[in-house]
Amino acid sequence: MPNASSLPPGFPTVGIVGAGQLARMTAPAAAALGVRLRVLAGSRDESAAQVVPDAVIGAADDLDALRRLAEGCDVVTFEHEHVRPEHLEALLAEGVVVRPGPQALLHAQDKAVMRARLTEAGLPCPRWAVVSSADEVAGFADGTWPVVLKAARGGYDGRGVWVVGSAAEAEPVLAELASRGVACLAEEKVEFVRELSAQVARSPHGQAVAYPVVQTLQLGGICREVVAPAPGLVDDEAVAAQDVALRIAGLLDVVGMMAVELFETADGRVLVNELAMRPHNSGHWTIEGAVTSQFEQHLRAVLDLPLGSPAALAPLAVMANVLGGDHPDMYAPYRHVFARDPGLRAHMYGKQVRPGRKIGHVTVVGDGPLEPLLDRARHAAGYFMGEILE
Amino acid sequence: MPNASSLPPGFPTVGIVGAGQLARMTAPAAAALGVRLRVLAGSRDESAAQVVPDAVIGAADDLDALRRLAEGCDVVTFEHEHVRPEHLEALLAEGVVVRPGPQALLHAQDKAVMRARLTEAGLPCPRWAVVSSADEVAGFADGTWPVVLKAARGGYDGRGVWVVGSAAEAEPVLAELASRGVACLAEEKVEFVRELSAQVARSPHGQAVAYPVVQTLQLGGICREVVAPAPGLVDDEAVAAQDVALRIAGLLDVVGMMAVELFETADGRVLVNELAMRPHNSGHWTIEGAVTSQFEQHLRAVLDLPLGSPAALAPLAVMANVLGGDHPDMYAPYRHVFARDPGLRAHMYGKQVRPGRKIGHVTVVGDGPLEPLLDRARHAAGYFMGEILE
Repeated sequence: MPNASSLPPGFPTVGIVGAGQLARMTAPAAAALGVRLRVLAGSRDESAAQVVPDAVIGAADDLDALRRLAEGCDVVTFEHEHVRPEHLEALLAEGVVVRPGPQALLHAQDKAVMRARLTEAGLPCPRWAVVSSADEVAGFADGTWPVVLKAARGGYDGRGVWVVGSAAEAEPVLAELASRGVACLAEEKVEFVRELSAQVARSPHGQAVAYPVVQTLQLGGICREVVAPAPGLVDDEAVAAQDVALRIAGLLDVVGMMAVELFETADGRVLVNELAMRPHNSGHWTIEGAVTSQFEQHLRAVLDLPLGSPAALAPLAVMANVLGGDHPDMYAPYRHVFARDPGLRAHMYGKQVRPGRKIGHVTVVGDGPLEPLLDRARHAAGYFMGEILE
Repeated sequence: MPNASSLPPGFPTVGIVGAGQLARMTAPAAAALGVRLRVLAGSRDESAAQVVPDAVIGAADDLDALRRLAEGCDVVTFEHEHVRPEHLEALLAEGVVVRPGPQALLHAQDKAVMRARLTEAGLPCPRWAVVSSADEVAGFADGTWPVVLKAARGGYDGRGVWVVGSAAEAEPVLAELASRGVACLAEEKVEFVRELSAQVARSPHGQAVAYPVVQTLQLGGICREVVAPAPGLVDDEAVAAQDVALRIAGLLDVVGMMAVELFETADGRVLVNELAMRPHNSGHWTIEGAVTSQFEQHLRAVLDLPLGSPAALAPLAVMANVLGGDHPDMYAPYRHVFARDPGLRAHMYGKQVRPGRKIGHVTVVGDGPLEPLLDRARHAAGYFMGEILE
């Protein structure tokens, strides 16, 4: 570790709870700004801890570990939501600057709290209810199945979401959540035409910027592809989606990046699906595709620096996730994919391959038309995953 | 340090001799590729050692330190030339992969060797001679003063270069170099209209790419501004400059990035001024301005991966260096420069401010015209340096 007294003065230290790929991709932004980064990692082998010298080893649900992370940091922020609100309140009481604050973050942690707050504020949500019995699920369905059940807390990447076709199918879900002490939400299964993501950043003093609205393709609850901007989205629709995200950011006093995952319905409306108060998979395209990446923007927001331009650098960007498949070696494919496509941008997260695990992503940026860009991104991702052999 | 056995297989480790800003700016490229980086740093406080967990502490002119760097690395490369050729030959003999190799690197280390080789190959150089006495300088001048004297080895950022107006003025330079055992070159003082830089990358198997030729502004031997591409350079001239750089890369069996600094004369010819076999200040614009940054390209070349596209992402990019001035705090200026210009890209190197020291740079990328981009970059750099107050 460097000796702090020999480093240039003025530059702050940002502590990130978590050391996955989102923290890893924040490291380049911090290095460019000269901002010092510290991560809270479960081990030295974690994705971000491989590339950040200042890694505090500990668990995100351990108040003592959070205190060790916060010690000497100018601000503590997050790359995931799996942290206890009471621990963050304890840090606040001890004078730690936590951004986003626990009152905001709660809405990304607890879907029941989020739904209640957004509904109260008139923001567009699917029909929803908190349910605790199969009878209540049946009452919510009112004869229209399937119904979506969600764990109010703790889900991610498709975990904690079930689509049930009857009250009987709801039983084991309700039993499992009850056994874990987690509330259950029932939501109408929205007949969406596609999924969108509206990312915004907001500063402590209220400056906010909105990124171009993107289209996301989710399979099995995992983001697979992002197209920026969302094709064919007319200006009014894009502005409406950005407006929803900006209103939520203001309503909840969000600080940092926030992604609002949206359903677009056949009649052109948007409904809020999920919130994430951190950099998000739907914003990875911004590394190469936007003036200011979501990772730098998050740092600027939590540091209360003026926000950077969220404008796109090119008419189109396509991002495709690389999930773990059969092959453990994700380096060898570079020889093929880079030779085939000199414009391909690749990101590998330093994670061991496990089936279905997000281990990297690729991005292509260009003028369009869209189809060749999609083909390039899909080919590269497919080749990494072993689904495409040449 | 992560436990190597728990990291994903296949990804190589690259060792960099040096831990200044060039190594620091290589770290993001390595993190994106999943390539592991190790740097040889004089101390933990050095620019790159602040952001690379795997820093070997030692001196670049210490063979033992070089061996510790090389241990476990798949390839060893450089961010500066201040390393002894005999040490590199020793590493080679021990089986270390060194790229560029010592025989290539020698031409970036010794200007007399470089001049002789390029002249022999018919590549365009200023008139030159090795000189060892004031009489020889006078003979070289043949009545036309001033003459440029250069230390054959060890110079950088304007050090090791003198412009002398008479044989008498040459005396102390010759005496100093003789006392250090360094040969002295005399060169005609080229009446250039501007300076250019042609950057190329080359792989061990001979693949090569050429970046757009840029215009550089040097003051006191220090790069201050880069405009990419060089304004008004007609295609033939750009191709001629790229051709010179590609021929040199092939001739010298360069591996990695190489910058060829050129003088452009009034009649549209280019003459080779200096070579650098590593990422170079004239290529910082590529971080935001090109599909593949010079830092990623250097890694891809030394790893013998297929090279990335060197194409520009926008019609124009302007980079301005930030040099140390009176103010030690380079973070506070962000509040002003970012608020004034949301499109500004800033890079701070984690270096203490010292007068005239390169401590950061800014880049703006856009469609043109050039003048507003120049104004933006100059304003931001000037504000950091305390030369512009609002």
